[in-house]
Parts: sequence; structure tokens; C-alpha cells
Amino acid sequence: MSLPSMDAGRVDGGLHVVEELSQEQCWDLLRSNTTGRFGFLQQGRVMILPVNYLVDGQSIYFRTAGDGSIAEAVPSLESSFQIDDSRADRSEGWSVLVSGASSRVEDQDLLTRLWGKVMAEPWAGGERNLFIRIHAESVTGRHVHLE
Amino acid sequence: MSLPSMDAGRVDGGLHVVEELSQEQCWDLLRSNTTGRFGFLQQGRVMILPVNYLVDGQSIYFRTAGDGSIAEAVPSLESSFQIDDSRADRSEGWSVLVSGASSRVEDQDLLTRLWGKVMAEPWAGGERNLFIRIHAESVTGRHVHLE
Repeated sequence: MSLPSMDAGRVDGGLHVVEELSQEQCWDLLRSNTTGRFGFLQQGRVMILPVNYLVDGQSIYFRTAGDGSIAEAVPSLESSFQIDDSRADRSEGWSVLVSGASSRVEDQDLLTRLWGKVMAEPWAGGERNLFIRIHAESVTGRHVHLE
Repeated sequence: MSLPSMDAGRVDGGLHVVEELSQEQCWDLLRSNTTGRFGFLQQGRVMILPVNYLVDGQSIYFRTAGDGSIAEAVPSLESSFQIDDSRADRSEGWSVLVSGASSRVEDQDLLTRLWGKVMAEPWAGGERNLFIRIHAESVTGRHVHLE
């Protein structure tokens, strides 16, 4: 699917071009970054919190506190994960949005593999020993740049 | 209110400190940045899209396309706006989350004032002549840093 607000190839006064990123480009960006944002619902409020993450297969993983707001909201059928970057000096930017169900990782083999991976320390510090998995059911991205 | 996943003053192995930001600190950060993310629901999917924005009073404003996914989702009782920054080399980061209803700006005096303000060009380029307002009903933030 494409991002509804994105007009691929649209030119703004001959300056800006908005391009849809391919699935491969999205995953390349996901694999080459370590900090993103987890989006979820908490009693109707759209929550967006930064997390450090890793990619394993077609899923996003991050650690959180076992007693925090994220742990309370997961498992969830509707959650998202987002990364972006922009260079105002070059009028350039990109963003990737991953959406799908999220769950707590309880499989021991998977946990062993995840703990064995090099991972940035959890963004918010503290004891964050619960691994959350976001199943990437939808992955979309766009790149905005000058012509 | 405080972010449920945040433990103010909590120390992680004597290294990380997570502090709740005051309302004033949150607004200072909101006023000193220009790019953030709008979070909203689209047919159940948690959408998180980058936008360039400005602060006027106790609201966040950004421009979007009149026929895009954001325009379709607004007005909305549940929407959020988020900014963050992190310095991995210093194990430091902060984030601010604004939540509240969002609406289309139709008041002519307000539109005149908004168009008169210096504002970064819309993140995604294109014709984005619809101003969206996020009423800041809840503003929370946190700062993670070394002791």
C-alpha cells in the first residue's frame, strides 16, 4: 500500500519531489538505524515514545520495562513503529512507518538470539527486560528531496 | 499527568537518570524545534508522519494537503504530536508528547496570523494549504541522561 498523503513524483513549484520508498529501501533504513518511535493506544490516547530497537527477520524488537505503559498496552493488534530523518539545510528527508500487531517475546530460543545481538541500550534507561516484537504487516516509506 | 513508563529520578546501574520535564521545559523545546510527528488513527492504524510545525499560544500548527490522509482524519478527538532528539554518543535524549483534539483552522484572523509567521516549508512538499491545529490538552516530556 502507499501512504495516502503521498503523491509519488509530485513536484512542488519545481522544487520538491516526494517518492515512495520500496520495501527493500524501507528495510535498509530500518536495519541501518537504532532509534525509532513506538506508537500505540493507551485509553484512546495516541502514544508515541522513543525506543532503541533492532531488526530480526521481518520484525522490529525493542526492550521495555515489565511494568510500564508499553507493557500494559501489549499485546496489541494495532501498533506502529516509525523512524525518520531530515536535513533542513538540504530540504531533504525520509520516513518509514511499520504497522502491525505487537506482542511480548516469550519464545526462549528467540529471546536467547535477541539477547545475543548487539543492541543499543534502551532509550529510557532503567531495567527494561521485556522484549516487545512488532510484526511488520505493513511497511511504507517516503523520501522528500529537491529535484 | 506523568508518562506511566517513566520513573522520575530512577537510576539504572548508577548511570541513567530519567527525569520528567516540566510544562515550561516542554514548551521551550516545542518552541525551539520545527520538525515533529503527527500521530493519528486511520481506520485503526496508528499513523505517525513527520511535519514541520509552529507553536502559537497553547497549540501546535502545521500545514497539510487538503486531500491527504491527515485532512481525512481531522477533525479528530484523539491525536498526538511528538518531538524528540537523542545523542547516542552522550547517552542522552529527550522527548515531548502533546495530545489533544485536532481541527482544521478556518478562523480567518488566525489564518492570517499563521500565514504571516515564519515557518519551515511543509516537510513533504507539495501544495499544503490546509492548516491543522492540535489543541495541547496534555503535554508530557522526559529527559534521559547520565548521572
